Amino acid sequence: MNTSIIRYILGQVMKVEALFLLLPCLVALIYEEKQGYAFLTVAGISGLIGIITTIKKPTNNTFYLKEGCVATALSWIIMSIIGCLPFVLSGDIPSFTDALFETISGFTTTGASILTDVEALSYACLFWRSFTHWIGGMGVLVFILAVMPLSSGSNINLMRAESPGPSVGKLVPKMRYTARLLYIIYLVLTLIEIGLLLISKMPVFDSITHSFGTAGTGGFGIKNTSITDYTALQQWIITVFMIIFGVNFNAYYLILLKQFKKAFKIEEVKYYLLIILSAVGIISINIYETTMSIEETLRHASFQVASIITTTGYSTADFNLWPEASKCILVLLMFIGACAGSTGGGIKVSRIVIMAKTLLKELNSYIHPKSVKKIKMDDKTIEHDVVRSINVYLITFMILFTVSVFAISFDNFDFTTNFTAVTATINNIGPGLEMVGPTGNFSMFSIFSKYVLMFDMLAGRLELFPLLILFHPSIWKDAIVSKKKNK
Amino acid sequence: MNTSIIRYILGQVMKVEALFLLLPCLVALIYEEKQGYAFLTVAGISGLIGIITTIKKPTNNTFYLKEGCVATALSWIIMSIIGCLPFVLSGDIPSFTDALFETISGFTTTGASILTDVEALSYACLFWRSFTHWIGGMGVLVFILAVMPLSSGSNINLMRAESPGPSVGKLVPKMRYTARLLYIIYLVLTLIEIGLLLISKMPVFDSITHSFGTAGTGGFGIKNTSITDYTALQQWIITVFMIIFGVNFNAYYLILLKQFKKAFKIEEVKYYLLIILSAVGIISINIYETTMSIEETLRHASFQVASIITTTGYSTADFNLWPEASKCILVLLMFIGACAGSTGGGIKVSRIVIMAKTLLKELNSYIHPKSVKKIKMDDKTIEHDVVRSINVYLITFMILFTVSVFAISFDNFDFTTNFTAVTATINNIGPGLEMVGPTGNFSMFSIFSKYVLMFDMLAGRLELFPLLILFHPSIWKDAIVSKKKNK
Repeated sequence: MNTSIIRYILGQVMKVEALFLLLPCLVALIYEEKQGYAFLTVAGISGLIGIITTIKKPTNNTFYLKEGCVATALSWIIMSIIGCLPFVLSGDIPSFTDALFETISGFTTTGASILTDVEALSYACLFWRSFTHWIGGMGVLVFILAVMPLSSGSNINLMRAESPGPSVGKLVPKMRYTARLLYIIYLVLTLIEIGLLLISKMPVFDSITHSFGTAGTGGFGIKNTSITDYTALQQWIITVFMIIFGVNFNAYYLILLKQFKKAFKIEEVKYYLLIILSAVGIISINIYETTMSIEETLRHASFQVASIITTTGYSTADFNLWPEASKCILVLLMFIGACAGSTGGGIKVSRIVIMAKTLLKELNSYIHPKSVKKIKMDDKTIEHDVVRSINVYLITFMILFTVSVFAISFDNFDFTTNFTAVTATINNIGPGLEMVGPTGNFSMFSIFSKYVLMFDMLAGRLELFPLLILFHPSIWKDAIVSKKKNK
Repeated sequence: MNTSIIRYILGQVMKVEALFLLLPCLVALIYEEKQGYAFLTVAGISGLIGIITTIKKPTNNTFYLKEGCVATALSWIIMSIIGCLPFVLSGDIPSFTDALFETISGFTTTGASILTDVEALSYACLFWRSFTHWIGGMGVLVFILAVMPLSSGSNINLMRAESPGPSVGKLVPKMRYTARLLYIIYLVLTLIEIGLLLISKMPVFDSITHSFGTAGTGGFGIKNTSITDYTALQQWIITVFMIIFGVNFNAYYLILLKQFKKAFKIEEVKYYLLIILSAVGIISINIYETTMSIEETLRHASFQVASIITTTGYSTADFNLWPEASKCILVLLMFIGACAGSTGGGIKVSRIVIMAKTLLKELNSYIHPKSVKKIKMDDKTIEHDVVRSINVYLITFMILFTVSVFAISFDNFDFTTNFTAVTATINNIGPGLEMVGPTGNFSMFSIFSKYVLMFDMLAGRLELFPLLILFHPSIWKDAIVSKKKNK
């Protein structure tokens, strides 16, 4: 394995994170908070290590998928460890495990919190929490690709490891140009949301942090009641933007290229919108009570559906108290997730669509055994390799899911809590049901369970394999051998 | 579609069922119960319709997989409808929906009951309930194949539709000779269990019915407390036989052929036993309390594990009250299920093993992208088609599972009840957790939910596709067209 290039990439990540950490320093300066020093210290250390490890250029440029996966997984782990230190040093979240949980939850855009009182945090920490969502949403490696020159092999393999969703057609952009364009779209959409929230008279700090959380489909709020206490208009704005950030960014990319026809014909986006509409419809009918106006019913249904399917995790209502059928739809949406190539998590709509098409094809083959229909999407035949990789993904997902539920069940909480805690972390959503419902949090879990759930958040964000191969013994054997060779 | 041969097969099924229905008549005669008349009436009607529909031999012998699936699905539906009539006519289960639920639960060897008081039933009905397990365990069509001459095309395609598990190697026996041998093994093992239970001083009626339930991995008991009140020895005997009936019958087949080496090397059986041992170990430690002896702890753990993994569903302890980790293991075992080619349900150990191997292969391919290792089982390469069919099975399973949980959630019971009710029916187990736990039952569900769960039981027993293609419009179009052509 090419350890020198991995060392170099990790160094770059630390340099970038040092820069990112300066933003909460600025916030601390504005609000005159002493927590700023914690951020400044960590930024300094991170930057220094980053500079030292990137002085020496990588000795060779071989960069395969293996290196891509290892670099990505380690980047995310290191990023999270560094990112949690300001919480610990500032004393806002004194426990290292809790701070790490919160930071991983931030970067992976999960939004699951171990805090019982969010409002007790300093502005700097609140800002950093929300900002980790924004960074994690598009991916820090994609950011590095967008701004730094790396070999083309590393471009492709880093993108492949960090970008969400199966690569159907051009879903995974392959050039630095695209990475840059993606970040520009991301930034512009975020700015528009901030602008609209400001116009709707949301305070500046709230507008910025909530927009970060929406853009990254994260879900950390700055109030204990999430979005419940904001105005109807503000809730609608956030609803719309959650849906926008759950759309395959390929659509915006095509719109920028002025290929409108193609942009509005993306099958995944159509199904995504169709699922949202159906879910809102059924839930609205199911939760409707005479004490609520129709607007209120629709607003709560839409907000929660948008929040869950895009895996954001904000809430305006305690859906844990909703009728069972509505809760069941939400749990279902947790697994479906957003579009591939968006900032959202979950299994992804395109995977679900391809699975459904596989089922229909199989039924057909029972009736017409000789027909050899291919599965198509966006009028293109889905390659056998894509179908295969989706199947493997599904199997791996199920195995990891099952093992996780079992592992945390030793804490002896009820089945629904365990089941939805794993659901909410592996799909990067945030809230689940019962004890981890919208008004609950993850603080009661044991340290062991917290690490299991952290693993699930990272595995979910990186689509399982980059993280899992870290556990393959040959990776470590390989790294040691190549290190010796370099000496 | 060849409707004439389907008509002929359904006729045969009704004739066979008429014969089977005479056994409870005999029981009624012994216990001097008037319920015998109900069984006699239904046997007469079933036999008569059977004879009329089989007077005319099928006009042609074309018999493809499509015909196999339709014939199997319709056989099981008709068998269940006829089989539930004695319950209704005798007044033991007056509601048609409930009686049908109980009968489908019997034939599919699920063992989920809508009865709140089992002991109120007549002996004839109790016997029929348990006997349906025995009939359904090996499959009524396999029985017909074993005793009646049909074209070789129909042999293969009926077997393929009715036998459980993926066809790995020789798992699906292909000749009438094998069908006969399977039934002989099945009968002999059942008789041995009856004998041993009699020696352990269990009453005759109890020995026979419990052996039927064990052999078919069904789980209907004749006491409200299932097996709880029997002696430790009797519980151990049933435990061992549940495990025996969950083994791939190929192993017994090979033993009969004196290929002992091969028989004891079947990979699936090894994993099956390994899973049982691990589960018993963990649960024993988890449930151990000083008030219970070690024998008692081991007995309860072994009984419940054997009962659940083989999808039988008997119980000697209310595992709904066990610690969460033990419950979680049991729910996990519900999905794993028994070996393919046994009478048990669930996803099947061999499918799980192949899935795990697929995952490992994928991880390897990330590290050695050019290696082209094949997945092997029992030293034979698993054909790509088998892997593909397992993936499709898994996808279909998940979709059906999800839709079912959603459908029954409108009854507004808690998530754990809904989730495990579907788990327990689609995997043909019987009890779940919470309201459908070992001391609960399925009576509180709405009629709609009951039909959903009946569908799941049939779909689970027939491994999804034979039942699902009944919903394919072209099947019905085809049937009508070919009927017109025949006229």
